[in-house]
Amino acid sequence: MDDAALHSLLRDVREGTLAPDDAAARLRRLPFADLGFARVDHHRALRQAVPEAVYGPGKTAAHCVEIVTELRTFGSPVVLTRASDEQVAAVLAAHGDGQVTSHAPAWSTVTWDGAPARPGRVLVVTAGTADLPAATECTAVLDALGFRPRVTADCGVAGVHRLLATVDELEGADAVVVVAGMEGALASVVGGVTAAPVVAVPTSAGYGAALEGVTALLAMLSSCAAGICVVGIDNGFGAACAVARMLS
Amino acid sequence: MDDAALHSLLRDVREGTLAPDDAAARLRRLPFADLGFARVDHHRALRQAVPEAVYGPGKTAAHCVEIVTELRTFGSPVVLTRASDEQVAAVLAAHGDGQVTSHAPAWSTVTWDGAPARPGRVLVVTAGTADLPAATECTAVLDALGFRPRVTADCGVAGVHRLLATVDELEGADAVVVVAGMEGALASVVGGVTAAPVVAVPTSAGYGAALEGVTALLAMLSSCAAGICVVGIDNGFGAACAVARMLS
Amino acid sequence: MDDAALHSLLRDVREGTLAPDDAAARLRRLPFADLGFARVDHHRALRQAVPEAVYGPGKTAAHCVEIVTELRTFGSPVVLTRASDEQVAAVLAAHGDGQVTSHAPAWSTVTWDGAPARPGRVLVVTAGTADLPAATECTAVLDALGFRPRVTADCGVAGVHRLLATVDELEGADAVVVVAGMEGALASVVGGVTAAPVVAVPTSAGYGAALEGVTALLAMLSSCAAGICVVGIDNGFGAACAVARMLS
Amino acid sequence: MDDAALHSLLRDVREGTLAPDDAAARLRRLPFADLGFARVDHHRALRQAVPEAVYGPGKTAAHCVEIVTELRTFGSPVVLTRASDEQVAAVLAAHGDGQVTSHAPAWSTVTWDGAPARPGRVLVVTAGTADLPAATECTAVLDALGFRPRVTADCGVAGVHRLLATVDELEGADAVVVVAGMEGALASVVGGVTAAPVVAVPTSAGYGAALEGVTALLAMLSSCAAGICVVGIDNGFGAACAVARMLS
Amino acid sequence: MDDAALHSLLRDVREGTLAPDDAAARLRRLPFADLGFARVDHHRALRQAVPEAVYGPGKTAAHCVEIVTELRTFGSPVVLTRASDEQVAAVLAAHGDGQVTSHAPAWSTVTWDGAPARPGRVLVVTAGTADLPAATECTAVLDALGFRPRVTADCGVAGVHRLLATVDELEGADAVVVVAGMEGALASVVGGVTAAPVVAVPTSAGYGAALEGVTALLAMLSSCAAGICVVGIDNGFGAACAVARMLS
Amino acid sequence: MDDAALHSLLRDVREGTLAPDDAAARLRRLPFADLGFARVDHHRALRQAVPEAVYGPGKTAAHCVEIVTELRTFGSPVVLTRASDEQVAAVLAAHGDGQVTSHAPAWSTVTWDGAPARPGRVLVVTAGTADLPAATECTAVLDALGFRPRVTADCGVAGVHRLLATVDELEGADAVVVVAGMEGALASVVGGVTAAPVVAVPTSAGYGAALEGVTALLAMLSSCAAGICVVGIDNGFGAACAVARMLS
Amino acid sequence: MDDAALHSLLRDVREGTLAPDDAAARLRRLPFADLGFARVDHHRALRQAVPEAVYGPGKTAAHCVEIVTELRTFGSPVVLTRASDEQVAAVLAAHGDGQVTSHAPAWSTVTWDGAPARPGRVLVVTAGTADLPAATECTAVLDALGFRPRVTADCGVAGVHRLLATVDELEGADAVVVVAGMEGALASVVGGVTAAPVVAVPTSAGYGAALEGVTALLAMLSSCAAGICVVGIDNGFGAACAVARMLS
Amino acid sequence: MDDAALHSLLRDVREGTLAPDDAAARLRRLPFADLGFARVDHHRALRQAVPEAVYGPGKTAAHCVEIVTELRTFGSPVVLTRASDEQVAAVLAAHGDGQVTSHAPAWSTVTWDGAPARPGRVLVVTAGTADLPAATECTAVLDALGFRPRVTADCGVAGVHRLLATVDELEGADAVVVVAGMEGALASVVGGVTAAPVVAVPTSAGYGAALEGVTALLAMLSSCAAGICVVGIDNGFGAACAVARMLS
Repeated sequence: MDDAALHSLLRDVREGTLAPDDAAARLRRLPFADLGFARVDHHRALRQAVPEAVYGPGKTAAHCVEIVTELRTFGSPVVLTRASDEQVAAVLAAHGDGQVTSHAPAWSTVTWDGAPARPGRVLVVTAGTADLPAATECTAVLDALGFRPRVTADCGVAGVHRLLATVDELEGADAVVVVAGMEGALASVVGGVTAAPVVAVPTSAGYGAALEGVTALLAMLSSCAAGICVVGIDNGFGAACAVARMLS
Repeated sequence: MDDAALHSLLRDVREGTLAPDDAAARLRRLPFADLGFARVDHHRALRQAVPEAVYGPGKTAAHCVEIVTELRTFGSPVVLTRASDEQVAAVLAAHGDGQVTSHAPAWSTVTWDGAPARPGRVLVVTAGTADLPAATECTAVLDALGFRPRVTADCGVAGVHRLLATVDELEGADAVVVVAGMEGALASVVGGVTAAPVVAVPTSAGYGAALEGVTALLAMLSSCAAGICVVGIDNGFGAACAVARMLS
Repeated sequence: MDDAALHSLLRDVREGTLAPDDAAARLRRLPFADLGFARVDHHRALRQAVPEAVYGPGKTAAHCVEIVTELRTFGSPVVLTRASDEQVAAVLAAHGDGQVTSHAPAWSTVTWDGAPARPGRVLVVTAGTADLPAATECTAVLDALGFRPRVTADCGVAGVHRLLATVDELEGADAVVVVAGMEGALASVVGGVTAAPVVAVPTSAGYGAALEGVTALLAMLSSCAAGICVVGIDNGFGAACAVARMLS
Repeated sequence: MDDAALHSLLRDVREGTLAPDDAAARLRRLPFADLGFARVDHHRALRQAVPEAVYGPGKTAAHCVEIVTELRTFGSPVVLTRASDEQVAAVLAAHGDGQVTSHAPAWSTVTWDGAPARPGRVLVVTAGTADLPAATECTAVLDALGFRPRVTADCGVAGVHRLLATVDELEGADAVVVVAGMEGALASVVGGVTAAPVVAVPTSAGYGAALEGVTALLAMLSSCAAGICVVGIDNGFGAACAVARMLS
Repeated sequence: MDDAALHSLLRDVREGTLAPDDAAARLRRLPFADLGFARVDHHRALRQAVPEAVYGPGKTAAHCVEIVTELRTFGSPVVLTRASDEQVAAVLAAHGDGQVTSHAPAWSTVTWDGAPARPGRVLVVTAGTADLPAATECTAVLDALGFRPRVTADCGVAGVHRLLATVDELEGADAVVVVAGMEGALASVVGGVTAAPVVAVPTSAGYGAALEGVTALLAMLSSCAAGICVVGIDNGFGAACAVARMLS
Repeated sequence: MDDAALHSLLRDVREGTLAPDDAAARLRRLPFADLGFARVDHHRALRQAVPEAVYGPGKTAAHCVEIVTELRTFGSPVVLTRASDEQVAAVLAAHGDGQVTSHAPAWSTVTWDGAPARPGRVLVVTAGTADLPAATECTAVLDALGFRPRVTADCGVAGVHRLLATVDELEGADAVVVVAGMEGALASVVGGVTAAPVVAVPTSAGYGAALEGVTALLAMLSSCAAGICVVGIDNGFGAACAVARMLS
Repeated sequence: MDDAALHSLLRDVREGTLAPDDAAARLRRLPFADLGFARVDHHRALRQAVPEAVYGPGKTAAHCVEIVTELRTFGSPVVLTRASDEQVAAVLAAHGDGQVTSHAPAWSTVTWDGAPARPGRVLVVTAGTADLPAATECTAVLDALGFRPRVTADCGVAGVHRLLATVDELEGADAVVVVAGMEGALASVVGGVTAAPVVAVPTSAGYGAALEGVTALLAMLSSCAAGICVVGIDNGFGAACAVARMLS
Repeated sequence: MDDAALHSLLRDVREGTLAPDDAAARLRRLPFADLGFARVDHHRALRQAVPEAVYGPGKTAAHCVEIVTELRTFGSPVVLTRASDEQVAAVLAAHGDGQVTSHAPAWSTVTWDGAPARPGRVLVVTAGTADLPAATECTAVLDALGFRPRVTADCGVAGVHRLLATVDELEGADAVVVVAGMEGALASVVGGVTAAPVVAVPTSAGYGAALEGVTALLAMLSSCAAGICVVGIDNGFGAACAVARMLS
């Protein structure tokens, strides 16, 4: 219900074509579809730069199908994240044109109705191969939003020359996503090399003192490189959305 | 030492005007000034979109003066953050043209050589008045970088209509900084209202279960609004730099 | 052993129909049934407004049957929470009139001897579909206690208009239970909208920085909306009992 | 802006006495007073059962005076919590009819425009004398709201007979606030004795493993007594508001 | 109110010298003195092996005096712990026969009415001199209870021979209190050397990763020496009471 | 190598029947059996009051058999804790006279060569049936050491009268073990009722804010009942050994 | 690209045999092999004293084979850590000369191209048999690097004489690795006995308050023995590399 | 008491010049001086490579003097760490030849009897000027031990070229100490550049999510550079001792 619709509604009231009571009722009802078990938010794509998204865990396969079906009515990009094999099979049976990206055993991203290609050089850099699941979720969502991200994997700071080999790309990027677990130091080094916005994704890669991603998270938040910003642990989806906000 | 300088150096070697040994030495020396107790990084403004900055705590007033003096040689914006009253007095004695912003007892931001005004509607929203110190640090740095941020204070979600009153501004912003302590819920609500990039600053406002900002930090990282990104607790400076990266 | 019984006992002593030694012994014995592995507390329904309840995990199916059998002797509502499929099968074999509500794989609530309907408009609001297991445990217990709660699912604050659509209901409620994981911000927004008592249930929905419900828990405890009260993570049963205390 | 006002506004539009543009503008402006540094929420007393409240820490004495002045225009109860001696002096100079309750060095509650006495037997029970500051904040706010709470201090469970001596009061209460630090066990014992709603306030009393109130907080949330609900550490104000919601 | 008193009361009822109502009232009142701000528990010395104790922090000096006065009416040992200089001065002014032990700036233990000497060889071992405050609180309370503990200071395991020099004493002790901060390893080594009960007191001595005593606490709880038991951080008072329970 | 043996050795040196070099070597070798993968400590029963014990997890079944065999050579009680079904089968095949106590799926205690009955009334009290695994480990070890503990299950403080029914036993005990998860409040109440030594065992029973036993652990360490001592989470073995130290 | 190569490159530029543009390109490219999913760092053996290593978890068996193949081209030691059974089978199929060491179910270390024996007495000491997995990973890597470590297992400080029996070896060592879980006290005792460098490896052995290795980690970092240094939880590989750095 | 002394003692027994009882006594007494409040360990310099050290906090100035006096009797290096101004004044009054290094307000290191210069190129690298207190403590102790460390300050990874300028020194070092707060990333980068042993000192520099050094600590322990080892937060003394162990 954008500003134009609001004025139009009020005009209808003035002109007597809409009763005040009805207008009051409508003013309180903003657009979403109530499926009973979920309130599908059709307004999101208008309000935000982000796709319509369904988070798989905790939903039945049937619920996933129903929500995806509802979301696709508007034609904007739809994303199903962290889908189980069973959920993937179900949504593909109903919506066979989905793009499936698999990252880890029984953890996939499925996208529909991808946006046309849009400008913006987005670089996704990972510290190690164990960070690829989060990085791949990020690139799958960026792809659905119309970006064509480049991935540079395995640039951990213990071999800092591997990162320096991509300095040109880092300097030329419009946005950089850094995906790193363990000590998460890559974000600081990248942040010192590029003037582009840097979105840091801590990952749960590592063991023991890596504390399932908490160490990388804290380190990225404490980065000595100014202006790094951080999303949740393993949240490749969130990083893609943050980039979309920045480049819209 | 940018790409042009690198080629020029190598050309000098080929033309015999620079001995290989001298070139090797120079290649290893990138531009910074070694003050003994600090290595002042003149390259930062080139590499990053952020200002030359000095973090006050733990430095003597004399060190602050010396570093500020060194940093100002290039004319780009210089920022002294979290300065004590003694540090403020010392740097103003030496560099009287500094802009001082005071947030809390004995915690000030001082800036010099502010950049000319640049486009970009930046909105800084706070949940409560206790979040103003971090918000003010953020706006002081944004000012120095040439932005003219607007501040909307005291929009906590317990009175969500206070926030809704600024929906137009939120929707029209190029970047929004949300500054909130306690449960940090404001970031989620703002993120659901605007398509602009949202930088969330958790603050240490609150007591008990607010855990000196950790609760707001975790909540912002777990936000159900997609694409929110987060900086460290009370890190208004970092949020300003993140905005500068996004709008450069 | 209520006050009347106490006076009666003492009168018996005075009249010589009860020996002091026997009275002393009886005074020390309050009413519960000792099954050996459990002390079933028949007094609870008198002392508290809450149902007789059995917590499934860690008990054998046979123990569950035995305790349920003991508890049902008084006719007040009996609840078995977090029951495994095996436990459900066993208690239904012995007590076939149980109402089974399933929330998640192998996690059910079974109730017997539900109280007659009682007044009180109770609204259960969830932030997302992943919060439904805790919400459903809550409504199953409320049902057994005679309340007829309404559920409004999937009202996360990132699409705050979904919540505002239920403002009338929120304002008219006698008690509201807010069930939310991730950043738990829904409790604050609801608390700002209604004057009714608000019981917040943090859930373990989410991943990474959501810390299995700890983030939502801390956020709800730090809510800027005054007078929100909180129960344990995923504790739908506890929220139902809290509501029962309030509306009794 | 209640429902009646909304209909009235729309009627004005229909009758042509209000231009649609003006109505649209007004619809976006809900009632609060913008003091620049704070947005005073006059709507709160309507929306919630809680008083207009100012949280002292981080505010200047002048700001406190200004906000209190604004809040008092409506005549509903106004509360200033955690006020410093300087703040107390300033607000009393401007509003000399304030009721001051001092709990700890430089930590006071000031109230104005207390509500007339209202029914509801509220019992505030503390585990030790060190819990009195939080308990006293709670009773000061309850008093302002019109309740006349009774306080039973120093009932720690290590001498459980001290608590049992108040069993009659506990059973007859309409609401019980339990204020306890250290291991917070009092909430469980009280919850087992009374059928009334129990609001538990963990306090920071204790040292070492008491972890400044976190231990009591966790213990209260994990209580084996069903239906206990919990507010933040030392949050006597929140407990009073929770009671007010329950008894309204 | 011991068993004899209970029978006597019931006999009085039977003989008609006590009305049932009065008996009922008396049965509900167990012995403590209500000072208004505190419920002094005269029954504790009967029920427990521990002294009547007052914890200083958070109490006014006047309250300390009043409670000590009340507690001393029975002649059993009275202890005031963690007393400030002001509290010490006040209680000595009223009760000049107190024994004062000072551990740290403004942190003293004061005892009155010490029990006569009783058997039991109690050894208090500390890892370093920084552990002496907790150790001294422990020995002051043990002294008041009639034990004559021996202290062996500064036996940290980095110089394990310092401990081995006291092996004979360790083996001959009836109870050993181990007081250690930092990594708390001393408890494990002592537990491996002696068959006596070992009470471990973690202290807040140390910095950084010692986490103000949490590290020592966790280490002592995880000790590879079987049968070590642990009290709270810096809780020398608790350790003394634990020893008193064991040797009574 | 006790004191007598040391003097005898030195006498042999003086009399020339032992060469100094041989004596030096022997002085460095204290009695244990090196199995290569384990150093079995035959001295422990002498040095400590505790049994020879093997902790099952992480050991192969063959290793368990070998260590048990070695330990049994001296005839003192031997305990295998937390044994898997495979380990139980293996040790029983080799040592068929073991006493097996099963607590939970695939978690058993096996004991051999139990000590003859010894005096000492030991009471083991649990808060709920979910605490029985730790309690049973405790009683199995106590049995092996010659104690005949009594168990009183399911005395949670929410129904405090269930505990009060055992007051006589609590007062008459020589040692009490309190086994409780969730908020662990039972330890405080028991500690206030009895003068006997109280060993508190926090358990991992509960969910969410119970934090797998950490909440009960912290609560027990912060108990307001003086002189409670605590062992590690779920450590029934440790509690039994602590009791053995106290009653030896 | 060592210093000699740098001068040679620059000489080529001066002599005209290398175009400046090509030199600039080469200067930016340091030696690693980009496999697409991984950047294999051939420079590491030159820059560091540590082996080429592959961390198994999160990689497909095929990726492991490909990386091992690439790494072996240089003939320096190659290590695959934490390999699953499937990964072990795959790499052995391709590189049958690997040395496999198995520590735990489905967790093996595989090494190739071990270095020739080198001097340095390295002692690996463990507290218990449950620490053997980390200890064995450490010795497997040390072996591959040419060291011939000695292992002394099961020296927990509860039987400190077991450790003292190895004092001669400890004093004579060039480096000592201490592997211990639970309370980690062994590191402090060893550090007090030897002048050699001590690398402490906390392990996740233990349960409850051992917090999966965090307790041992904190304790080792807080050790009262000066100069102990610590690696991550269960990080036997890291400890071996630390020793290699020290003895190179 | 080294091996030679042990044989000599036994020879005296054989030759009858030492009574067995006296020998037994002496064998149990290893060399330390008991000052009552402290057991000064003269054996440490023999057993360990580290200096005799006194940790200032918690000791009176008089105690510091007494311990320093005792320690200096052997002529090996003596170190007083974290000394207050009052302690410094006292020890200098008694031992005027001490070398004082001041790092922060009221926090100094004092050393006596420094060892003669010894070989070993030790490099101390800091991330920022706020890390200088810990770095200076480290160099003061290294100096006392005879090393002549070089300090390279302010090499944070956000300007990685500042570090690369010291690559030659890093590669040529015998040991490198990395001192860094905030995200601690410097340790990983340094560890990737040099083959020397790297001792990482996390510092409490930073605020908010830096968690007073815990973030840097965790990050260093999780470093992707193999073989980094870590000491406690701000523990410059420990790092110096670790280096001394390595280079002895």
